[in-house]
Amino acid sequence: MNDSTRLTMRYCCYCGGPVVERIPAGDSLPRMVCDACDIVHYRNPRVIVGTLPLWKDQRVLMCKRAIEPRLGFWTIPCGFLENGETTEEGAIRETQEEAHANVRITNLHSVYSIPHINQVYLVYRAELLDLNFSAGEESLEVRLYERDEINWSEIAFSSVRFALESYYADLDARTIRTHNGKFIPEY
Amino acid sequence: MNDSTRLTMRYCCYCGGPVVERIPAGDSLPRMVCDACDIVHYRNPRVIVGTLPLWKDQRVLMCKRAIEPRLGFWTIPCGFLENGETTEEGAIRETQEEAHANVRITNLHSVYSIPHINQVYLVYRAELLDLNFSAGEESLEVRLYERDEINWSEIAFSSVRFALESYYADLDARTIRTHNGKFIPEY
Repeated sequence: MNDSTRLTMRYCCYCGGPVVERIPAGDSLPRMVCDACDIVHYRNPRVIVGTLPLWKDQRVLMCKRAIEPRLGFWTIPCGFLENGETTEEGAIRETQEEAHANVRITNLHSVYSIPHINQVYLVYRAELLDLNFSAGEESLEVRLYERDEINWSEIAFSSVRFALESYYADLDARTIRTHNGKFIPEY
Repeated sequence: MNDSTRLTMRYCCYCGGPVVERIPAGDSLPRMVCDACDIVHYRNPRVIVGTLPLWKDQRVLMCKRAIEPRLGFWTIPCGFLENGETTEEGAIRETQEEAHANVRITNLHSVYSIPHINQVYLVYRAELLDLNFSAGEESLEVRLYERDEINWSEIAFSSVRFALESYYADLDARTIRTHNGKFIPEY
């Protein structure tokens, strides 16, 4: 499938009429507007939910990506939140889908914004309930990593690096808290 | 403007061709798909960001809504996260827009899912930097509330009630933590 995020909206998806970009009444930002059916086509950031699946607090379950972007790199289980689910439900579903792993969420670990691609990550700290995990369709391989086994140059996303680094900082400090981060690219 | 969330997507907004609902290859849920330009039109939950603006930890700044839904009811400053901003930037912007208030974010206070309307609230605890606030365009009135002045039947949304109740529970327990909540309607 093509990536739609770089395409320009031209037609109203409800009536098929042309859309124009203008600032609607009472708004302050330009939006895609259909004057035929009086609809504003808002576009907003997407939420990516996932878990940091821990075994006895020391080992983290990670997935080697079978799909682009970052095919072959390692991630924790995460993916787009779907309509109709809570953030915790989404995080558990993604962990099941990508790693066939059974987890119990303990707390919200990190919130991480990537504004230039309109993404917000919510990563939950979770306990693995057993060691019955295996690669899901979007993973080439899943395995437990000890801290000193992680090859940081093979981590797929800055959000995953942030979640892992802040987890180990918590472990060293013997604290548990929710971390806030962001990625702003240097141009 | 009309509410687009209840309408059915019929046309591809990029090429104007018809869309059909089917499960794309490699997916598990039905999506709106355009076969002419090979685009999947994903629809995902939206993020609402806001603050709990506090004056000396005891008083909360609230806004009386000037717009639907829940016109005339009281809320904390919050609104949809926009593309291109971090969650903290969005929360500060909404506080400026709705209450013309200057705040400094201290920590993430609550994450609250409302899955039946595809919303996720992220509410930040924030300090009011001064008492120079006033009603923005979407507010009829803004004022500081002492805890015992709050009329709970006039609170606009369950997410706001949750943020306030968990804030006062923290205050009683002398703790600061991030709260997770959800609203599931009873049918």
